[in-house]
Amino acid sequence: MPAIDPRAAIPGEDVAAGVIARLTATHRTLAVAESLTGGALLAALVGVPGASAALRGGVVAYDTALKRSLLGVDAALLAEHGPVHPEVALSMARGVRRTTAVGEALADVGVATTGVAGPDAQGGVPVGLVYVAVSDAGGEAVQELRLSGDRSAIRAGSVAAALQLLSERLSV
Amino acid sequence: MPAIDPRAAIPGEDVAAGVIARLTATHRTLAVAESLTGGALLAALVGVPGASAALRGGVVAYDTALKRSLLGVDAALLAEHGPVHPEVALSMARGVRRTTAVGEALADVGVATTGVAGPDAQGGVPVGLVYVAVSDAGGEAVQELRLSGDRSAIRAGSVAAALQLLSERLSV
Repeated sequence: MPAIDPRAAIPGEDVAAGVIARLTATHRTLAVAESLTGGALLAALVGVPGASAALRGGVVAYDTALKRSLLGVDAALLAEHGPVHPEVALSMARGVRRTTAVGEALADVGVATTGVAGPDAQGGVPVGLVYVAVSDAGGEAVQELRLSGDRSAIRAGSVAAALQLLSERLSV
Repeated sequence: MPAIDPRAAIPGEDVAAGVIARLTATHRTLAVAESLTGGALLAALVGVPGASAALRGGVVAYDTALKRSLLGVDAALLAEHGPVHPEVALSMARGVRRTTAVGEALADVGVATTGVAGPDAQGGVPVGLVYVAVSDAGGEAVQELRLSGDRSAIRAGSVAAALQLLSERLSV
């Protein structure tokens, strides 16, 4: 029987630490754009000691209008598909690299979440449908999730999936 | 002996719920600017069901340069005092109302955190020195905290203090 790891109580903590370590080792910066996760993805990354070496910061665009004004998501895309769509997630991940530019230097990697945490469906989109996306100069990835559970569980699952996608993208 | 309240396990949860309820009842919107708390204040507010009625979103300006570019904090103020200063906290709280404007409409209330979570002091500022600030059209408030404990405890204490200051300001 394996020893109990007290850190296992915080889902995603090890993945977040691995992400920060890999970014730091490769001298890359990260920016985060969140919707349904509302700051929890940023908080998981900031929880890693030394995160400031790699993490620029990010935007919580909880109001859909902010996805357009702060992240540059296309208004026509939002009007046609609403905020829970794979192209919106990708556009948020791309956009936050620019939003967090320091001088001319974009953030090297952007990660984003959008979806419905509940308790109610939103504009016909069911509770638990979530998209997570990663974008960098070399490429992009987006993943669709169908999560179950309450609001808190759906947000935690979304944070864990975004960290995992980010970790995989950084290993390419 | 009082009954155990299972909600007591999440510090600030009741205060966050009260803040969202009061904002919603008075038809006001909220925006959040975070530094050391790195998304945890936003996440505490988003954790309240129905938060979307009042919470626009916010900015995590973890890199000091983003306090200037995304929140409009004065470069001379940052150069003179660094990012951990009461005027910087107030400026972040004011600035995020503009950053999260929807059309011409600023967010009604801004709340901000800046400070040093550790493990190391930062530019001569000791670990645990934190400022939380609230700004709205009717006035402003800022509070200095001297927190002890590890990185996680200092961030949790900062979130709780920001929620408390916000709650008091909304009751004026």
